[in-house]
Amino acid sequence: MAAKTALEKKIKAMTAKAKRASYEMALLKTSVKNAALRKVAKAISADTAYLIRENSKDLRAAKKAKYADSLVDRLLLDEKRIRGMVRCLQDTVKITDPVGEVIRAFRRPNGLLIKKVRAPIGVIGIIYESRPNVTSDCIGLCLKSGNAVILKGGKEAYYSNRAIFRLVRDALKDSGVPEEAIQQVDSTDRDAVHILLKQDADVDLIVPRGGEGLIRFVAENSSIPVVKHYKGVCHTYVSDKADLKQAQNICFNAKVQRPGVCNAMETLLVHEKIAARFLPAMAKDFTHAGVELRGDAKTRQILKNGVKRATDDDWFAEYLDLILAVRVVKDTAEAIDHINTYGSKHSDAIVTRDKREAQAFLTAVDSSSVYVNASTRFTDGYEFGFGAEVGISTDKLHARGPMALEELTTYKYEIHGDGQIRL
Amino acid sequence: MAAKTALEKKIKAMTAKAKRASYEMALLKTSVKNAALRKVAKAISADTAYLIRENSKDLRAAKKAKYADSLVDRLLLDEKRIRGMVRCLQDTVKITDPVGEVIRAFRRPNGLLIKKVRAPIGVIGIIYESRPNVTSDCIGLCLKSGNAVILKGGKEAYYSNRAIFRLVRDALKDSGVPEEAIQQVDSTDRDAVHILLKQDADVDLIVPRGGEGLIRFVAENSSIPVVKHYKGVCHTYVSDKADLKQAQNICFNAKVQRPGVCNAMETLLVHEKIAARFLPAMAKDFTHAGVELRGDAKTRQILKNGVKRATDDDWFAEYLDLILAVRVVKDTAEAIDHINTYGSKHSDAIVTRDKREAQAFLTAVDSSSVYVNASTRFTDGYEFGFGAEVGISTDKLHARGPMALEELTTYKYEIHGDGQIRL
Repeated sequence: MAAKTALEKKIKAMTAKAKRASYEMALLKTSVKNAALRKVAKAISADTAYLIRENSKDLRAAKKAKYADSLVDRLLLDEKRIRGMVRCLQDTVKITDPVGEVIRAFRRPNGLLIKKVRAPIGVIGIIYESRPNVTSDCIGLCLKSGNAVILKGGKEAYYSNRAIFRLVRDALKDSGVPEEAIQQVDSTDRDAVHILLKQDADVDLIVPRGGEGLIRFVAENSSIPVVKHYKGVCHTYVSDKADLKQAQNICFNAKVQRPGVCNAMETLLVHEKIAARFLPAMAKDFTHAGVELRGDAKTRQILKNGVKRATDDDWFAEYLDLILAVRVVKDTAEAIDHINTYGSKHSDAIVTRDKREAQAFLTAVDSSSVYVNASTRFTDGYEFGFGAEVGISTDKLHARGPMALEELTTYKYEIHGDGQIRL
Repeated sequence: MAAKTALEKKIKAMTAKAKRASYEMALLKTSVKNAALRKVAKAISADTAYLIRENSKDLRAAKKAKYADSLVDRLLLDEKRIRGMVRCLQDTVKITDPVGEVIRAFRRPNGLLIKKVRAPIGVIGIIYESRPNVTSDCIGLCLKSGNAVILKGGKEAYYSNRAIFRLVRDALKDSGVPEEAIQQVDSTDRDAVHILLKQDADVDLIVPRGGEGLIRFVAENSSIPVVKHYKGVCHTYVSDKADLKQAQNICFNAKVQRPGVCNAMETLLVHEKIAARFLPAMAKDFTHAGVELRGDAKTRQILKNGVKRATDDDWFAEYLDLILAVRVVKDTAEAIDHINTYGSKHSDAIVTRDKREAQAFLTAVDSSSVYVNASTRFTDGYEFGFGAEVGISTDKLHARGPMALEELTTYKYEIHGDGQIRL
């Protein structure tokens, strides 16, 4: 109990300092922020040996604990991945500073000039698992957008995150960025997260990154607004007006290129008119790549042997694996209805050559990112040209889709008068 | 217990129908929505006698229950106020439909065309007290922005809200607006609010309007995102570079013109260099208008008799009354610091002739609406030219300041490809 109180005091002190620092951050010039980012990038590329050494401690522990290969892979920092971290910081330098942008300006009949101006949010808490690059990506994005950040990484990446954080701290000495604008919760105690989530007086936004369990824990325990995505149940709908060759290519990519990520396809919807022509060739590709298919009655009728029956659970499932649910629909309306009922508002695609049908699908599908004739795999900050991302949102408030610099800002109204009073 | 279950079933059925209706609302043409708004405006102006009759039942009950005069006044519907409701609906017709607006469009090196497009949020829940005009204002704004709305008004305005709702319902028959897009919780049971706040599967946003007690209840019990303001602790800072005559005028208006509202001034900050010149004349005006002053040591030294000592509680207070806290500060930085420490992020003003000082204040004060040389009383949807408002937000996420059509939208990314896959 005494230990808990000490932890609580420590975290409260951190967040209060972050709040103070956030007011300074809001006033920093773009040139100062860019110079700071360049220093951080330089420090990281100059000390890859140190990062790899510290990372190996995490890897050893993970292997000893017999973590899954995929988790160990996510933990790994090698030369190539560190170059990726550095490039991401360098890209963030190039992206326009959103702070101070006049989103709109208008004059009222009484002469008041009202400007809607972009401003930093304040203090951002990032709670994440395993991948150490999140540490530098999020520091870069929060710094450039003028926010203070508090990082709480997973215990499995403890040494890696600590090492990155130390390099950043040292690099930012005398950079003009207040030291307390970037802080790390240096504790593997889950209570630390719980305490952090209650600091609504100081922290303005929490972004959780990781598995659904972590995200539900954060959403249920936070008194601070949370922007998040629970899962990515992404669909591709192949219309009867599709170029079937193109559809085959897109569907294969969306499922197979990297099945373990949130923007991979989990359910394939096929118009009944072309199902008998499309599905056999498509299924052959999938089977070749080791994809297990689970289909509705019509799919199973067409594909015959080897296709399991899909249940309602399959339509809701985020497999993150080489498994695919397949359903034959009678028209585009039924496809849209399926997606809005079972989907997770992440990324969904239509393949069609009909522009009117494409636009109807784009408008009616209630998801963050809706595609025409492309793979759902493109939903991420880097692919959208945002440099990196602090996360992807399937929420509808504040931010939707990849969250980067602009999504780390709010706005304020600046109102210029010459003595106006209300009559 | 049986009754509670029945209520729960009823509200769940309402929200599920609202969700369905919201998909239709998202597809409605602007012309259909405008025609519907005109019908509603016409129906209300044609039946003022009915509204006044129903309203009188609420007024009688309020008087019988010995409610405060200010509450009875908020409840009142007379010819003039009904004309205001009608004008607000007519204004909403004129304001540009935000749905479908392309906020930004950009092409990626791989040829993908990404459009960031404005879309309705979905289902909005409005939980409010006393003022019956909120019913028609919110219906108008939600309709125009393509959202479904569920209204839960206060029991003190039960008959008035029911009457407005009935007129709206009848007016919208055969208008193309789905009937279930506009619903009212026809229950005075507080459990109804509690149940509504848990329907996060169907309701996308809750906007509470009313006293701090209601808003805290909503924020603490909602599993749906809430955008809100608790209170308005608004400041005016009179710089040593102010036109003192103008400052006197602005401060008087901000405090006295309508003291019971959230954008009225609660604390006056005065630069020490001009305090001895400014405060005596200002205090005379205030005393004349019946304003009680509570000052820090320097203020009391200047004003001598009759000024109570301000405590820390006064700096945090939203009086909503003819009371004003007054503090002398040594410079603009101290004024900004005071506002960011004790304020409520609502509306704050500086009076100064120095443009550089004005801009520093605008940038550093962390509030939704920051004024130069004008009264804080202008923070509302009508005064900003938004037609009306569903509420004012002092939150920093999603929306800040007056919330109207644009704030009732989210966005989605529409991505147009010609077969792009991820490599």
